[in-house]
Amino acid sequence: TTNAISLMKKHILVVPGDGIGAEVTAVGKQVLETIAQKFGHEFTYDEALIGHVAIEATGAALPAETLEKMRAADAVLFGAVGHPKYDNDPSAKVRPEQGLLQMRKELGLYANLRPIKLFDELLSSSSIKPEILQGADILFFRELTGDVYFGEKTRSEDRSTASDLMIYHKYEVERIVRKAFEAARTRRKKLMSVDKANVLESSRLWREVVQALTPEYPDVEVEHQFIDAAAMLLIKDPKRFDVVVTGNLFGDILTDEASQIAGSMGMLASASVGDSTGVYEPIHGSAHDITGKGVANPLASVLSAALLLDISFGMKAEAEAVIAAVDAVLKEGYRTRDIADADTPADKLLGTSAMGEAL
Amino acid sequence: TTNAISLMKKHILVVPGDGIGAEVTAVGKQVLETIAQKFGHEFTYDEALIGHVAIEATGAALPAETLEKMRAADAVLFGAVGHPKYDNDPSAKVRPEQGLLQMRKELGLYANLRPIKLFDELLSSSSIKPEILQGADILFFRELTGDVYFGEKTRSEDRSTASDLMIYHKYEVERIVRKAFEAARTRRKKLMSVDKANVLESSRLWREVVQALTPEYPDVEVEHQFIDAAAMLLIKDPKRFDVVVTGNLFGDILTDEASQIAGSMGMLASASVGDSTGVYEPIHGSAHDITGKGVANPLASVLSAALLLDISFGMKAEAEAVIAAVDAVLKEGYRTRDIADADTPADKLLGTSAMGEAL
Ligand SMILES: CC(C)[C@H](C(=O)O)[C@@H](O)C(=O)O
Ligand SMILES: CC(C)[C@H](C(=O)O)[C@@H](O)C(=O)O
Repeated sequence: TTNAISLMKKHILVVPGDGIGAEVTAVGKQVLETIAQKFGHEFTYDEALIGHVAIEATGAALPAETLEKMRAADAVLFGAVGHPKYDNDPSAKVRPEQGLLQMRKELGLYANLRPIKLFDELLSSSSIKPEILQGADILFFRELTGDVYFGEKTRSEDRSTASDLMIYHKYEVERIVRKAFEAARTRRKKLMSVDKANVLESSRLWREVVQALTPEYPDVEVEHQFIDAAAMLLIKDPKRFDVVVTGNLFGDILTDEASQIAGSMGMLASASVGDSTGVYEPIHGSAHDITGKGVANPLASVLSAALLLDISFGMKAEAEAVIAAVDAVLKEGYRTRDIADADTPADKLLGTSAMGEAL
Repeated sequence: TTNAISLMKKHILVVPGDGIGAEVTAVGKQVLETIAQKFGHEFTYDEALIGHVAIEATGAALPAETLEKMRAADAVLFGAVGHPKYDNDPSAKVRPEQGLLQMRKELGLYANLRPIKLFDELLSSSSIKPEILQGADILFFRELTGDVYFGEKTRSEDRSTASDLMIYHKYEVERIVRKAFEAARTRRKKLMSVDKANVLESSRLWREVVQALTPEYPDVEVEHQFIDAAAMLLIKDPKRFDVVVTGNLFGDILTDEASQIAGSMGMLASASVGDSTGVYEPIHGSAHDITGKGVANPLASVLSAALLLDISFGMKAEAEAVIAAVDAVLKEGYRTRDIADADTPADKLLGTSAMGEAL
């Protein structure tokens, strides 16, 4: 039977990281296991440390053991990294974020996919007008292993001058832009490339590469925007966007901004893929202000699990089942605090794990 | 009499630049002249070229003559620079934007002030909900002569690698941050510093400098945000912002995004000040798509003229008269296309120069 053929064994590494990471990945994992049982797959799980919790336990933000486990896994369900302690200490030598950046580099996760789609039920929870939002559906491709994130950093001996090199190689731009073109083909066939080519040499290289590839995808309509204009247009007219491809830094900024289109950061999932194991994580950070209170929205982790099923395991039906479940709980009026509004009755206002149960 | 004492002679250089620059600065200049006559001042004017029109006429984006005239003037009313021709030709050697960047560097215009304030009448013309916007009032201090804009650019011989150096010196950060602290003192006493200190060394320097200055301004409440979070918060909760200080690149992005808070880019003025003559210009660009059609909104240039009167000439009452005039035409229902809505009657929909007359 089809069932027997499609049964799959997969090994998933859960890497909760810092802050609310543990609470939300617990729900994400629970959903993965429910799917495994429903669809007759066999998922095995392991856990590993990263970020602040890893520094505390081992001294390293990305312990060698974690990296090994990541390479060995079929996919990674990731939480978040970061801790306010380091943010207020600009001279700290080891920082949680290094673990995240090192992981991206070591696993060759050069393509970060961030789908921005508004669930109809959350139309009113955004600060943007519903008529502007309705129908918006954007897929970001953020380059994730290059740019000013990974270029050489310097600090003068007297500490009075600091620099970071914003640098791109042609092959780095080419591979992510191709992925974006291919995705555009399966969607509304529009690709927006975002750069600052009127000022930056690295952006001029970026634009040259996009222009050189454009003739290979004659069915895709290409638009170039400067990052400042794109940041403005995203709010003014989100429906104009289909697939967006951009560098690491501009992608970081635009996708966080775009979270307002989806009503809340708490709803946004991302997939980081490339040469090796794919990593699936919420866009939101470690959110230490609400850590341990049990109020964090787990839906971004749940939707990250859906991306994991879809992209790393090729399980379309399983991924759709997860999205349908999210849709259903929202339709029934269940909300976590971040997506609730004045009309949400108290009995529908759920904490993190109750939302997991509802799913 | 007070009148006799306050009469001033001032020389203003008008630098229209490209695209709609000419149309909008014409209105800005007209308003300055009206003010001069009303208040008994004597303003003299000259014009000079910059950008694409300067390249066409002289081969240089910032001709030496223009720079001389700028240094000699008491203030510069600036239009915009840019031309689509160069945007689609990443390898062009001379580009209009070089004129703008060179001007900023040569005149030492290190502080770019961008006030974001919504005129009540335009509350509905934004894509953001009125209840989110109402009362928002933000003053951006964007550093304007450093950062990745001015760091060394490289391109490998085979053209396959390109880089830009993001670099800050302590003194550059200090002087703009001080200006921002001082402005915060005259307002709601809140300062948000925006950086990416969790990834960038130049941002860590930035944050160290802000932290070191903070004790000198104990009456100002300081908040640090990462650029990605700031881009999100700006839309989610614009009222949280009072004074914002940030680097050149992050300031470019955030202020364009913030234009949506003011309903339209067509309403936003900026002042660039520093060591020498101040330059006053709209935030909007050259907008070649509407150039020559007589539909551009001249109010950003008019409000730039108000900033010029206030900051460079110390003429508070005169500046307020300009803002009151803008307020009055909006109250009477007059709109240019970009700020009109479905309810704007045809006879109140004005072109560029008619809006100037209405003022
Ligand atoms: C935590 C930080 C280093 C990270 C980034 O900037 O990439 C985060 O903002 C993200 O978007 O994943
Ligand atoms: C035209 C461009 C170089 C310029 C900039 O990026 O500074 C513009 O966007 C601005 O904000 O004044």
